Amino acid sequence: MNFCSSTFNSSEQFMARAVKLALRGRARTAPNPTVGAVMVRDGQVVAEGWHHYCGGLHAERECIADAKAKNVDMTKCTMFVTLEPCNHYGKTPPCTEGIIEAGIAHIVIGTRDPNPKAAGGLEFLESKGVKVETGVLEEQCLDLISDFLLWQSGERAYSILKLASTIDGKIAGTTGRQEAVSCPDSFEDVQKLRAMVGAVIIGGNTLREDNPSLNCRLEIKPEGFAQPKAVIVTTKLPENHEAFTLTTTRAKETIFWTTIEQAASETAKELVNKGIEIIGLPCDEKGLIFENGFKFLREKYGVLRTLCEGGGKLALSLAEQDLIDEFVMYQAPRILGNTHGRPNFAGSDRQFMEEALNFRVSRVSQSGCDLKIVFKPADR
Amino acid sequence: MNFCSSTFNSSEQFMARAVKLALRGRARTAPNPTVGAVMVRDGQVVAEGWHHYCGGLHAERECIADAKAKNVDMTKCTMFVTLEPCNHYGKTPPCTEGIIEAGIAHIVIGTRDPNPKAAGGLEFLESKGVKVETGVLEEQCLDLISDFLLWQSGERAYSILKLASTIDGKIAGTTGRQEAVSCPDSFEDVQKLRAMVGAVIIGGNTLREDNPSLNCRLEIKPEGFAQPKAVIVTTKLPENHEAFTLTTTRAKETIFWTTIEQAASETAKELVNKGIEIIGLPCDEKGLIFENGFKFLREKYGVLRTLCEGGGKLALSLAEQDLIDEFVMYQAPRILGNTHGRPNFAGSDRQFMEEALNFRVSRVSQSGCDLKIVFKPADR
Repeated sequence: MNFCSSTFNSSEQFMARAVKLALRGRARTAPNPTVGAVMVRDGQVVAEGWHHYCGGLHAERECIADAKAKNVDMTKCTMFVTLEPCNHYGKTPPCTEGIIEAGIAHIVIGTRDPNPKAAGGLEFLESKGVKVETGVLEEQCLDLISDFLLWQSGERAYSILKLASTIDGKIAGTTGRQEAVSCPDSFEDVQKLRAMVGAVIIGGNTLREDNPSLNCRLEIKPEGFAQPKAVIVTTKLPENHEAFTLTTTRAKETIFWTTIEQAASETAKELVNKGIEIIGLPCDEKGLIFENGFKFLREKYGVLRTLCEGGGKLALSLAEQDLIDEFVMYQAPRILGNTHGRPNFAGSDRQFMEEALNFRVSRVSQSGCDLKIVFKPADR
Repeated sequence: MNFCSSTFNSSEQFMARAVKLALRGRARTAPNPTVGAVMVRDGQVVAEGWHHYCGGLHAERECIADAKAKNVDMTKCTMFVTLEPCNHYGKTPPCTEGIIEAGIAHIVIGTRDPNPKAAGGLEFLESKGVKVETGVLEEQCLDLISDFLLWQSGERAYSILKLASTIDGKIAGTTGRQEAVSCPDSFEDVQKLRAMVGAVIIGGNTLREDNPSLNCRLEIKPEGFAQPKAVIVTTKLPENHEAFTLTTTRAKETIFWTTIEQAASETAKELVNKGIEIIGLPCDEKGLIFENGFKFLREKYGVLRTLCEGGGKLALSLAEQDLIDEFVMYQAPRILGNTHGRPNFAGSDRQFMEEALNFRVSRVSQSGCDLKIVFKPADR
């Protein structure tokens, strides 16, 4: 497939490469931001770097190390970095000093650092005579750190919704039987998403129909990896809880979000006795209100990111409650063509397009024969 | 938005640029293939060309002319061209000769010319000492000429389906009221699609609900432009035909595809008296069989491309009859969330994903805030 970018601007192409590198580190950089950098000489990328894990070298220092290893004359290079280089002593010395030491004379920054502690890099570099440009692919560079910005300012986990859907918006056939919608590459990619979250969220229907384990099944897991917790959202706790993998073999990692009444029920007590956690959430006429659940995961377990793998009703509820920070859709290029297939979003009584929930496209890439489209809420 | 191409291979990037240039000519090159070319020196595009219109210079000669105008030393350049340069005298002298005269020593070809009359360019160039590579982005370069290949071998018009749809596969709200789904850029782009087809096809529901004119409303129209014919597909001819723009002010450009029985009805006679053409098509249990309609348009009016702008039922029928050569979807990043919204594909009784109709992604680009995704049938 062909991705026609709207411009053929080389600065943007180099920054797009830095963005792509940054994403490689995403599973392990939290609670740090994901950052990528490339070194460019005469229109060619000559060195690359990204922040691999929290506590490791920052992207700029990785890139400088790569350049040194390749005997690149950095005084003749421009460095593209997705985030303003830090100017403070944290787990590592400031990147600004590394840049000056390396003799790099020209820096292009995707977006300035909104963290006041780390900011000031631009001014420091300019004071040392470095030419600094900012704002290349700024929206995309900001999107890279939108989780980081939430962790700085908010109290809840960053919420990712994942759906695999046909062109006609179906996530399963009419029977609900578990069937592959997307291609094997997309399955593998979902495992990578699971590897970077602290909890996977599903609805009660998914529990009953698919009996999932929600484990990350990557063969090579990130260092320090722990299986994500499993969160089941349901207004009715399951009485036949012996039937499910999550409520038996993964009981100690399983949490129910349910009504306050259900959380005080006999079924709840049985589940609690098995080591399962039950969280009662408030309700309105549309159902459970999830925000406290996301706060609970962050506060009690330090969960920084969640991944919702539920069906269309849960997906729509999250969207309506503005609790989708990022929406990853694997769009399979196929058509069921039957309006009774399971919908990717369902449960709204919106009649008109003007009432639709608006997102924006943040990133598009190929995932085998599928498209992987990353959406963000339109207003952020 | 960010388009992450799967590779960072510069040959592919240059060919992708040539593909993009080729598409600029698409409205006016028919029945010639659309072709694009770029001249590259030291990793930079230094000249560009594309086939503008049938009878005009070929892409290679446009690119050579651009290079000459810019005083480019072509002996130091590589030319990337989407289609093998022609080796025969047609409306213009062979491009292979132009390439030799220009002194270009290295050619990269997207795909070989399947037209035996024009082929042989590769061998001729090699016999003159030019280094020739082939097969860079071959699938995309073949997709560029898939209409041309049909014209060479088939008897029918090349069929393009267009839909503007939400993430959840809706083309309108629940009432069917005409509302914008996609953004203004996509509206404008649809006008460009209309400018390159000989007929626009809709269903009877679209006629009744939207009363469209189906005119191309581009402010600057291609030279030699004529408004596309309007084809209405319906098993029941409208008795209230005074109510519609197409059957009154555009009567002489309007054609109905209907059943053989309806084509012999009194209503048909009334419509014919107004200058409207009625084509009776065979039926099976699922409805009209369209192939003869596409053949008729080609044979009687020389229509090379059609654009279907119908609703979900017509779209699905075309897909089931394997009469979609190209499917252009404007995907608006929004969610209606109501399963009663109008679906982009409807009318199938497929229960399982494994029965789904398979396409492949050919091209993806940005159209304002929408994604423009071009699909092709998976098996071609």
